[in-house]
Amino acid sequence: MTIETTKDAELRARATKVVPGGMYGHMNGANLPPAYPQYFARGEGPRVWDVDGNEYIDLMCSYGPIVLGHRHASVEAAVAAQRAEGDCFTGPSARLVELAELLVDVLPAADWAMFCKNGTDATTLCLTIARAATGRRTVLAATGSYHGAAPWCTPNPAGTTPEDRANLRYFEYNDLASAEQAAREAGDDLAAIIVTPFRHDAGHDQELVDPAFALGLRDICDRTAAALVLDDVRCGFRLDIGGSWEPIGVRPDLAAWSKAIANGYALAAVTGTDALREAATHIFTTGSFWFSSVSMAAAIATVTRLREIDGPAVMERAGRRLRHGLATQAASHGLRVNQTGPVQLPFLSFGDDPEREKANTWTTECVRGGVILHPWHNWFLSTAHTDDDIDAALAVTDAAFGVVRARFGAA
Amino acid sequence: MTIETTKDAELRARATKVVPGGMYGHMNGANLPPAYPQYFARGEGPRVWDVDGNEYIDLMCSYGPIVLGHRHASVEAAVAAQRAEGDCFTGPSARLVELAELLVDVLPAADWAMFCKNGTDATTLCLTIARAATGRRTVLAATGSYHGAAPWCTPNPAGTTPEDRANLRYFEYNDLASAEQAAREAGDDLAAIIVTPFRHDAGHDQELVDPAFALGLRDICDRTAAALVLDDVRCGFRLDIGGSWEPIGVRPDLAAWSKAIANGYALAAVTGTDALREAATHIFTTGSFWFSSVSMAAAIATVTRLREIDGPAVMERAGRRLRHGLATQAASHGLRVNQTGPVQLPFLSFGDDPEREKANTWTTECVRGGVILHPWHNWFLSTAHTDDDIDAALAVTDAAFGVVRARFGAA
Repeated sequence: MTIETTKDAELRARATKVVPGGMYGHMNGANLPPAYPQYFARGEGPRVWDVDGNEYIDLMCSYGPIVLGHRHASVEAAVAAQRAEGDCFTGPSARLVELAELLVDVLPAADWAMFCKNGTDATTLCLTIARAATGRRTVLAATGSYHGAAPWCTPNPAGTTPEDRANLRYFEYNDLASAEQAAREAGDDLAAIIVTPFRHDAGHDQELVDPAFALGLRDICDRTAAALVLDDVRCGFRLDIGGSWEPIGVRPDLAAWSKAIANGYALAAVTGTDALREAATHIFTTGSFWFSSVSMAAAIATVTRLREIDGPAVMERAGRRLRHGLATQAASHGLRVNQTGPVQLPFLSFGDDPEREKANTWTTECVRGGVILHPWHNWFLSTAHTDDDIDAALAVTDAAFGVVRARFGAA
Repeated sequence: MTIETTKDAELRARATKVVPGGMYGHMNGANLPPAYPQYFARGEGPRVWDVDGNEYIDLMCSYGPIVLGHRHASVEAAVAAQRAEGDCFTGPSARLVELAELLVDVLPAADWAMFCKNGTDATTLCLTIARAATGRRTVLAATGSYHGAAPWCTPNPAGTTPEDRANLRYFEYNDLASAEQAAREAGDDLAAIIVTPFRHDAGHDQELVDPAFALGLRDICDRTAAALVLDDVRCGFRLDIGGSWEPIGVRPDLAAWSKAIANGYALAAVTGTDALREAATHIFTTGSFWFSSVSMAAAIATVTRLREIDGPAVMERAGRRLRHGLATQAASHGLRVNQTGPVQLPFLSFGDDPEREKANTWTTECVRGGVILHPWHNWFLSTAHTDDDIDAALAVTDAAFGVVRARFGAA
């Protein structure tokens, strides 16, 4: 199948002149097989269109933010109403209080909320609050976990300094002994442990959390009076409306939120417990747009809707259908695949594929067939993905498995 | 004059339960005299309304973002058109390329642009690029200059660590000898000098840049192959459409932009020269909403409009009228005042006012009279402020000076 790419190519050529490397960050199409579109023009529900008019079933959801589907009616209505009043004033609007109240109501671990713009703002703020509360410096994080793109956490350290990470120590995800060891090494300087709800490092198969590991981290923090920080930026509101570790009964002291919180509108949040409230009061952090109302109105509409319809369950249903379909297809083609992580954040890799040639071939064929997913980063579902959408995607993935089988053989 | 504050008080009471300290950051009303509203409901042109319906002439412009007036027609039209297509996709839209091209066209020092969300993102990114380019660590900054609220630069270090600032050295603004000394101390490790276009530290009178100082910083960077970073987050697009140091002929290697770039929509940018392009390509930074299209559409409309009407000149005219009026009024009341900084970012302090009692009294009376300005942070004008708006504000400020004179006497 050939797809039109004229406008995309033209924009890429123009961008090489005015954007370093043509594009930057996680949306840099140069990191993906050539068939991927770089530029998009429109989104509606579970579908997106690139600048050349090609239509796709969107299994990336903008790398997470789109959780109710593109341009969801209830969110857009809330946004339109807020825009008619204004967005960015010399102070917040009532939306800030309403949203903080909603989060405190929805999230069992939250006694308060603060708002910012980036997931990185939220994770950084959690560490700052934990350090202010404890008077300590050391933070433990899992090797390879993505907690944002600030100098202390960006996965590519170019342009950062050793001092940016001087107060971090690392453990292995799901290896409690390694976390205990890192905590011992931190001694009486342990301010916080920051951890993702499951292991979702890009470029690797995903790994669900071992509940004993989560409980063990909680125990370390309880013993040392350090703060347990759950980085729910990527998973938040997809796995459990009350927080991603609610199902295993482990509550963080601080949690970082962003991505899905406002169905694509720029917002992030930190929530915390009463024990951290005083510290959160005495740090100074702010941003020019952190008090703006439109994204808060969008968040109120998004979280309210997700709660009403049990959004995580809706996505789980779609995710199970997709996972089952992919497993059946791969088996029928004699291909060994690994599907890992929670079904709401799907990921598939191929056996015996060290250079990702199979993954690149398969995802290229999916894109050409009209399904956007990713060869080395987890995907995301939304509540807009119906059974029909999943089935339409599966028709494309089946043909793509056929190409992989033809090119690389079985297994 | 008494103003209704019922709803504001109710929201403040609710916020104390769900927001640490009731509010955080630069929009925390607890840092202002009690008459100030904390919560706003609506904005239109040069005016805002608080949640109790009180109307104000807005001389703060949301601490800078509102540069064409609230809800400017051309910006809102561009935003509505973009919203109909979508905002946040699995990649940028054509708006990103169009906006980068526009900035490269408008800003003589810019060969490329990257986009982010916070002014702090932009200043931090400038340092990262400079360090990647030079392979050095040390950055020079002026004592007390505000470059954002990340751990390396927040004015209140609670919750930060000494290591966050281990690679910074400080000089005094407009004191070239102190900058030369700091550069000597950095030796062969000088990566960058970051500096604001003029001295606009909160809590102090403003101070215009000495052109010889700016030229001297440029010379240090040229001699040492360090990057000169102009932090134009607060002033950008108000003083000169080509960059705030264009009038004095000093061009930075990297510049940070935010606030006014999109008339209130959440956006920040880094621009740089060809010499830094390669380094900017090889760092990794990103954000969930850094590629979103609505704020970029807003920025295109904002910058285009500011260029069409020579926005800085429009604001300069309003600023001169305001400054002249305030000076005349203060003199007629026998009050000594200091008006400092560029007229587009006005600021007024009182003589012999170490506890800011006069400033607090005067700004309180201004707020009660329907004018929002600030006792210890610079104000901001927009192109929406007409002569009539300035004259209406001056009627209020005159009465407020009368109260100061009656309470504190002359001088």
